[in-house]
Amino acid sequence: MKKILKVQVDLGDKIAQAIAGGAEYYEPESFIGRQVIVLTNMEPKMITGVKSEVMLLAADLQGKPIWLTVDNDVPAGTHVR
Amino acid sequence: MKKILKVQVDLGDKIAQAIAGGAEYYEPESFIGRQVIVLTNMEPKMITGVKSEVMLLAADLQGKPIWLTVDNDVPAGTHVR
Repeated sequence: MKKILKVQVDLGDKIAQAIAGGAEYYEPESFIGRQVIVLTNMEPKMITGVKSEVMLLAADLQGKPIWLTVDNDVPAGTHVR
Repeated sequence: MKKILKVQVDLGDKIAQAIAGGAEYYEPESFIGRQVIVLTNMEPKMITGVKSEVMLLAADLQGKPIWLTVDNDVPAGTHVR
């Protein structure tokens, strides 16, 4: 049975739900307060029966996701360009 | 006269040159050894006469770029997905 991570992401104007890989490497608690980078221009999709509305971006270190972040705090919802 | 930043980015298999904004906020030295996230699937373009081959991604904090990075070191050239 594949473990997945269900993450609530604050987009500034709303909270989105994401299903993230990497459950074999990360505890759910490790996401609390973490600044993540997400793709928002996607259609929501169902992953193992759970809705995923955005996608957390990560560097792929031989299968282990190393989450993208910012090197200074920015407000939730700040756009990337 | 607009200041720009000319950055050499190690893509793992080659070095690419990028022109980055934010010269009013960042000293060139601040990029040394920094892990950045770049878009590579772009046509090289000339910016103020200098070739820019990749684009550094940043959160846009009211015009100030806050560079994307990773929260653990990864080898240069690691792909994002």
